Amino acid sequence: MNLYALILAGGSGTRLWPLSREEMPKQFLAVCGGEYTLLQQTVRRMSKLTSIDRLRIIASGRWRPLITHQLSCLGIDADCVIEEPEARNTAPAIALGAASLINGGADDGDIVLVCPSDHIIADETKFGEAVKYASESAAAGNIVTFGIKPASPETGFGYIKTSGTGGGWLTVDSFAEKPDRDTAEGYIESGGYYWNGGIFCFSVGSIVRAYEDHFPVCARIFGSEPGDMEKWFLASPIESIDYAVMEKARNITCVPLDAGWSDVGSWDAVYENSPLDERRNAAVGNVSLHGGGNSLVVGGERLICGIGLESMIVVDTPDALFVAPRGASQKLRDVVGELARSHRDEVAEAPVSARPWGTYRVLSKGERHKIKRIAVSPGCRLSLQYHMHRSEHWVVVKGTAKVAIYDRGNDETAEERLVHEGESVFVPKGHLHRLDNPGRIPLEIIEVQIGEYVGEDDIVRVKDDYRRN
Amino acid sequence: MNLYALILAGGSGTRLWPLSREEMPKQFLAVCGGEYTLLQQTVRRMSKLTSIDRLRIIASGRWRPLITHQLSCLGIDADCVIEEPEARNTAPAIALGAASLINGGADDGDIVLVCPSDHIIADETKFGEAVKYASESAAAGNIVTFGIKPASPETGFGYIKTSGTGGGWLTVDSFAEKPDRDTAEGYIESGGYYWNGGIFCFSVGSIVRAYEDHFPVCARIFGSEPGDMEKWFLASPIESIDYAVMEKARNITCVPLDAGWSDVGSWDAVYENSPLDERRNAAVGNVSLHGGGNSLVVGGERLICGIGLESMIVVDTPDALFVAPRGASQKLRDVVGELARSHRDEVAEAPVSARPWGTYRVLSKGERHKIKRIAVSPGCRLSLQYHMHRSEHWVVVKGTAKVAIYDRGNDETAEERLVHEGESVFVPKGHLHRLDNPGRIPLEIIEVQIGEYVGEDDIVRVKDDYRRN
Repeated sequence: MNLYALILAGGSGTRLWPLSREEMPKQFLAVCGGEYTLLQQTVRRMSKLTSIDRLRIIASGRWRPLITHQLSCLGIDADCVIEEPEARNTAPAIALGAASLINGGADDGDIVLVCPSDHIIADETKFGEAVKYASESAAAGNIVTFGIKPASPETGFGYIKTSGTGGGWLTVDSFAEKPDRDTAEGYIESGGYYWNGGIFCFSVGSIVRAYEDHFPVCARIFGSEPGDMEKWFLASPIESIDYAVMEKARNITCVPLDAGWSDVGSWDAVYENSPLDERRNAAVGNVSLHGGGNSLVVGGERLICGIGLESMIVVDTPDALFVAPRGASQKLRDVVGELARSHRDEVAEAPVSARPWGTYRVLSKGERHKIKRIAVSPGCRLSLQYHMHRSEHWVVVKGTAKVAIYDRGNDETAEERLVHEGESVFVPKGHLHRLDNPGRIPLEIIEVQIGEYVGEDDIVRVKDDYRRN
Repeated sequence: MNLYALILAGGSGTRLWPLSREEMPKQFLAVCGGEYTLLQQTVRRMSKLTSIDRLRIIASGRWRPLITHQLSCLGIDADCVIEEPEARNTAPAIALGAASLINGGADDGDIVLVCPSDHIIADETKFGEAVKYASESAAAGNIVTFGIKPASPETGFGYIKTSGTGGGWLTVDSFAEKPDRDTAEGYIESGGYYWNGGIFCFSVGSIVRAYEDHFPVCARIFGSEPGDMEKWFLASPIESIDYAVMEKARNITCVPLDAGWSDVGSWDAVYENSPLDERRNAAVGNVSLHGGGNSLVVGGERLICGIGLESMIVVDTPDALFVAPRGASQKLRDVVGELARSHRDEVAEAPVSARPWGTYRVLSKGERHKIKRIAVSPGCRLSLQYHMHRSEHWVVVKGTAKVAIYDRGNDETAEERLVHEGESVFVPKGHLHRLDNPGRIPLEIIEVQIGEYVGEDDIVRVKDDYRRN
């Protein structure tokens, strides 16, 4: 009996704006003073329970570069990404994941642990124990949901009503949608209610049966040829696993989890889950606080000086700053929506953009110029490309670049050369070119773009092979 | 009878940090939503009372480039700067200014109006009237001090005790040092007390006599050869005009001034003197405020998003951010002092640095690289220089550069060439070089410095002639 882990990393969102962006969702961020991103924390948590080769991450293909990059930072080179063709909520995603495991050789008796990629679990020992009980219950044919011990009458979560004397796991009587305040308070008083944290455990055999019984359209994914899985995935209704399976199946059990769980769904939640200093401040980055307390200050290189800040939230990024009193951060969603409707770059674009070949950061933008700092991973290269409206100057700050520049409109005759630290090269407008890191360390270059138009969309990609072999 | 204006621009200070820096004192900043800097406002105010050729600005030589730059923005090319060899408070500075006027042809009967460069006066009509009365009183042989009608029992200013029935001017009974709170409240109740705003008016003849009677050491400046003025200036005690002359002379009068005066000595003062929106917020820059009110938000290009900010101060600059509740900004002086003691660049260096040839801004700093955006004024050039530890790449973003690069250690044989928009040039480490703007529009270049050390002090200047003729 093997334990597999399915990590759901499809989520997008800007509830932690300006740190999180459409281009950089929460799961890819390090918050609460942790050195690892929420995804990395989740992967590390799972890797203590099972081996990496039994771990899968389900996400849109657009996140593959980011995920690959963040896994490689953990020393994990295995490709564990299962691409969902589009976001159709958790039911089809989990089915796709389970089906992939089956095609990969998983047996009916093997156990699957499903969890989100953007939550915090402080106490890994307790989580491990809970997983042990959940595996036993799953092996006994149950579909297990983890019940988070409610810390407060939270109205932002669904609730699980349980009964039974407890022990390893409880019987689930029913699931309740997000309640209003009074209802939630009633739940807390009456006891036996838990938050639904979206963590599940089941055997391969029983989840397949559950889909066949309760979500048959989607169940066609199971046993289908790998080539057909996408078709059946796209044919499936958009639905959450809770509604599609959990609320309908009879064999649902609940394993209570009291391990410092948080969905880190707001800056207030980030504060509550951050290490605090003696003034109960949580400060990250180049921060200098004087007086006051109970505040969250998240910055980077820029000096942030606060005087007498009391219960404030300050989040500073290279292109956007957010300031609010604690407790107001729920309003952030609407405000960011407003900014998005007025097409503010700061909502969509991340200051640091991840690409299959590495990352880049815009240092300065002007009407006729743009300056980027580009980092190319060892053995990677940018697509073979040219630009209609701009020429590019590359100055190598670190490492060695292999640069090919072709005569205009002719991709046969390339002038190819190595450019070392401190050297530079000029790419004329309209000329095919390619940037390549043949070395063993990351290549860092400063790119100065000049032209009548310097938008990201002025790029014609001729070849997209990002890795030499 | 001519009216001369002496503007004291020697002041330094960081009370408006991070907008003001050691390199960029308050008088050179535009605050309170004004389009002109405080110095420019002062010059414009004075130019309505007298002609530009009768206006002088007394400041340290280090500010000459900035002053010249800010005057040229007003279309003023006259060189009105009188350099004080070092800061020795207002008494020697004013003596130096008056002596320069005398050497320039001012007569005993001519009137001199002295005022700081970093204050606000909202109502220029009322100020003009006050100056009219002051000139009359000065012509009658009095030394006139302007008394600011006190708006509150301020403990940060000195007070002037007056008597007499008023009218054009009052008799001055005495000057009082900065009082404690109770004393200040006493002054307000008893009436007849005014703030000492550091604005004075006198005839050339009477100020010379006053110095001879009460501050004789410094009086030697008057009538001395231009070459000796510096010697006598440096020989003078460090003293304020208030203590050296005003508190001792008998012929002091006071002209009340009720014209929306402020010394803009703190961010709170900036808020109080800024135009407010319907929520009583004062916002400058790319600011998006939601809820709350009564706040001051000063930013630039970066998006600043505030939710529910109530009576807060947020000041955002490219390299430093300041956040505090209103009322706490007096503590800023100590905090900045603390930062200065820990040698933070953000206290001394301004994000945009002014040089005799133009300005530069650091876009990005790294261990082995620094990126600057450099603007060279038409007809200006940088010093002939070389660097021990870095090479430089220049990319012309706008305009045309004339670049001379010499063989290492040999300043005879220069490779000189024109570099046009979109072109670039490489300056090898250790090679003498010079950057020159021969054109009619400002030259803008991106400079990428690379080397084992990229500090500002790695520069050997061989020639310092900043302007070609």
